[in-house]
Amino acid sequence: MATSQQAASEKSENSHRVVVVGGGFGGLNVAQYLRRVAVHVTLIDRRNFHLFQPLLYQVATGELSPANIAAPLRSVLERQKNCVVLMGEVTGFDVGSEKVLVDSTHGSEEIPFDTLVVAAGATHSYFGHGEWARHAPGLKTIEDATEIRRRLLTAFELAERETHADQRRMLLNFVIVGGGPTGVELAGAIADIAQFVLRHEFHRINPAEAQVILVEAGERILSTFPPDLSANAQSTLERLGVSVRTQSLVTEVAEDHVTVIAGGRTEQIPTRTVIWAAGVAASPLAKKLADATGATLDRAGRISVEKDLSLAGHPNIFVIGDMANCSHDGGKPLPGVAPVAIQQGRFVAKLIRAQVEGRTLPTFRYRDLGNLATIGRSAAVADFGRVKFKGLIAWVLWLLIHLMNIVNYRSRVLVFVQWAWNYLTHDRSARLITGSEARRAVDEFKHAD
Amino acid sequence: MATSQQAASEKSENSHRVVVVGGGFGGLNVAQYLRRVAVHVTLIDRRNFHLFQPLLYQVATGELSPANIAAPLRSVLERQKNCVVLMGEVTGFDVGSEKVLVDSTHGSEEIPFDTLVVAAGATHSYFGHGEWARHAPGLKTIEDATEIRRRLLTAFELAERETHADQRRMLLNFVIVGGGPTGVELAGAIADIAQFVLRHEFHRINPAEAQVILVEAGERILSTFPPDLSANAQSTLERLGVSVRTQSLVTEVAEDHVTVIAGGRTEQIPTRTVIWAAGVAASPLAKKLADATGATLDRAGRISVEKDLSLAGHPNIFVIGDMANCSHDGGKPLPGVAPVAIQQGRFVAKLIRAQVEGRTLPTFRYRDLGNLATIGRSAAVADFGRVKFKGLIAWVLWLLIHLMNIVNYRSRVLVFVQWAWNYLTHDRSARLITGSEARRAVDEFKHAD
Repeated sequence: MATSQQAASEKSENSHRVVVVGGGFGGLNVAQYLRRVAVHVTLIDRRNFHLFQPLLYQVATGELSPANIAAPLRSVLERQKNCVVLMGEVTGFDVGSEKVLVDSTHGSEEIPFDTLVVAAGATHSYFGHGEWARHAPGLKTIEDATEIRRRLLTAFELAERETHADQRRMLLNFVIVGGGPTGVELAGAIADIAQFVLRHEFHRINPAEAQVILVEAGERILSTFPPDLSANAQSTLERLGVSVRTQSLVTEVAEDHVTVIAGGRTEQIPTRTVIWAAGVAASPLAKKLADATGATLDRAGRISVEKDLSLAGHPNIFVIGDMANCSHDGGKPLPGVAPVAIQQGRFVAKLIRAQVEGRTLPTFRYRDLGNLATIGRSAAVADFGRVKFKGLIAWVLWLLIHLMNIVNYRSRVLVFVQWAWNYLTHDRSARLITGSEARRAVDEFKHAD
Repeated sequence: MATSQQAASEKSENSHRVVVVGGGFGGLNVAQYLRRVAVHVTLIDRRNFHLFQPLLYQVATGELSPANIAAPLRSVLERQKNCVVLMGEVTGFDVGSEKVLVDSTHGSEEIPFDTLVVAAGATHSYFGHGEWARHAPGLKTIEDATEIRRRLLTAFELAERETHADQRRMLLNFVIVGGGPTGVELAGAIADIAQFVLRHEFHRINPAEAQVILVEAGERILSTFPPDLSANAQSTLERLGVSVRTQSLVTEVAEDHVTVIAGGRTEQIPTRTVIWAAGVAASPLAKKLADATGATLDRAGRISVEKDLSLAGHPNIFVIGDMANCSHDGGKPLPGVAPVAIQQGRFVAKLIRAQVEGRTLPTFRYRDLGNLATIGRSAAVADFGRVKFKGLIAWVLWLLIHLMNIVNYRSRVLVFVQWAWNYLTHDRSARLITGSEARRAVDEFKHAD
């Protein structure tokens, strides 16, 4: 084992060493809010960029390019003198000797910490059905998004060349599992593409005949919104041609169909394109950290944190964002959304500053800034507690808020230009079928046939 | 076998059927220039987009996103009523019954033609050393570009974490094989990144210490340019810190080194990042077409064409672009550059129009509009025959000409914004390490260690 964090330790010698695992909304905010604090920060991520996940579905639907929503971490933190970025995979934690273990070319590298913040996010959960992953990719990474884009666009191309009517029908069925914001946004965007973008581009098929089916196990879609906004979202989707099936349970995802049970009736929906927007589980790092600290995990694999976001018995170890089970005011755990992670990151940074300066800080309180979800072109729902919006106003709010929150200026300009263009021309220029396995779907389909 | 080109034949019933294989510069120009001609066009490509290859190196170096230089073929040809786009892989030609065979989900699909234009382009050639491909990717596709981008950026990340000095040195050696325009442009762009873009982003390494080595077998780089421009390009590169090695022959490409022979001396250059910009061979479809028609292939696998770009004995079959060996005025074959393919595409479209209207057309003549190559930031060489430019003027010309030639307006705006930003900020925001095998290099390196 090599202890090679030389430069970092050189620079930090006497200063408090903060190690942040994960460069998402939570981790990045910890690092940035420690900018003027007398600590030395090491930010570790296995990717070289921060990903603006709320717009990932727009990469999956060809509206934006991956680089528009991904900011290189080194570039974002370039001017922050007290922060070192380390690209690598965290493999474990040595809590006793206060070290993070990172995968290295020479075995394992040990990064010592005085304070540790773990913000490694979440991944998909197929509720024990890992075999569904192959047929129903989720949407968490850039690669997930370009893979979904490939499947969506390939389905239309295959349908155009398909001679058997039932096969063509199957290719034009798109099933989205999960009626949360991601599922709703995907369903709306796919319906948009089929209705408007591809309308005049094919010759044998009419893309508008594509059927988008949104399957939700619960009573209503967007269950974290007030019931009237859920109803509005559902009717907006239905006007776009989306078939919304609530209280419908997916019991099987196969190569050429999805099985759904609703009201005791079992239905097989023939399809070759399924997107998984249903289950989320904490990063496997949560389990490793729990094993090392004795912390408890909830059903989604999240770590239960104290009121100051630290772990019980480990006041210098914090868990934030999608990995944390943070029961706000004793109620349900806070949702896995960006505002929670951002506020938690800023809180932990302030707490570290307070500790370094010998002060104390009250416990973390989440300030609910509201909930937004967009539904295709020109429609959205927005819930700000006392005030609610739907339709065009909510959509404009959604656009502005997302645009303002993109990390760097250039991306803001590029995203704005593309949104304006997409809106005016009904086009999506980033709809490329790419990937080293770009032809896999075609081949698989052929072999299955 | 299914003959399912129903919609196409419905629309074409009595009209002349033109089948174009390949949606690159050549094929796309054939289709577009037949817009107002009473023929029915089927454009077949295995990808769903037209690629602006001259800017591909900017995707490889993180300056632009793939979608900025790729225009969906269906979108480009959406309003052209007499043209059908078919996404599929051409597997062969039945010249006797005038049919093109296309890979289909039900075996093979046969597309009948009255006139056939084959413009399937070129691929890399490793001069019989296919085993080098793994260590030295070429630059022809979007996937090539993102793979090279991954390797370049990963090398800096691994160097930052490397504790052994010689390993770090090896990781910061970048070898480009081939001193044509692509090699020169890549070398300049990589030197730019190392010198300016990454300068303040790392802590243990100084990216400016990266060594870019351009290896050229011939006497000078940019051999198609006048000698004084070659000399200027070489000195410009050297000022950027690039080591230019002419009359140097690569005899081996391995995982951790390249062997070069120059002046009888053999040298091993330790490196983990090699880019192949040396050899080009025609698409394997050239061989299939030659077998079907009795045409002859040259050493690079290109098909020799008549003065009207048709095949001897097959006046209704044309080959254009990088796949064609077109000896202009009896001299050397025309180079594999976009202007040749574009002019040939337009010529064939005019010829088809003339034939349909019962006229004849003189033979193809290439009008040499000049040669351009850019060399990093603010420098280029331009050769317009009587007039030559170098330095900043040539660079501005290069920018304008490339910007004007990008197929769609939106990409022009997006490329312009990014170029301006990159120039002013010394940044490259599209430098993402992505790909389902994004961690492969790290793993390989580790296992080799």
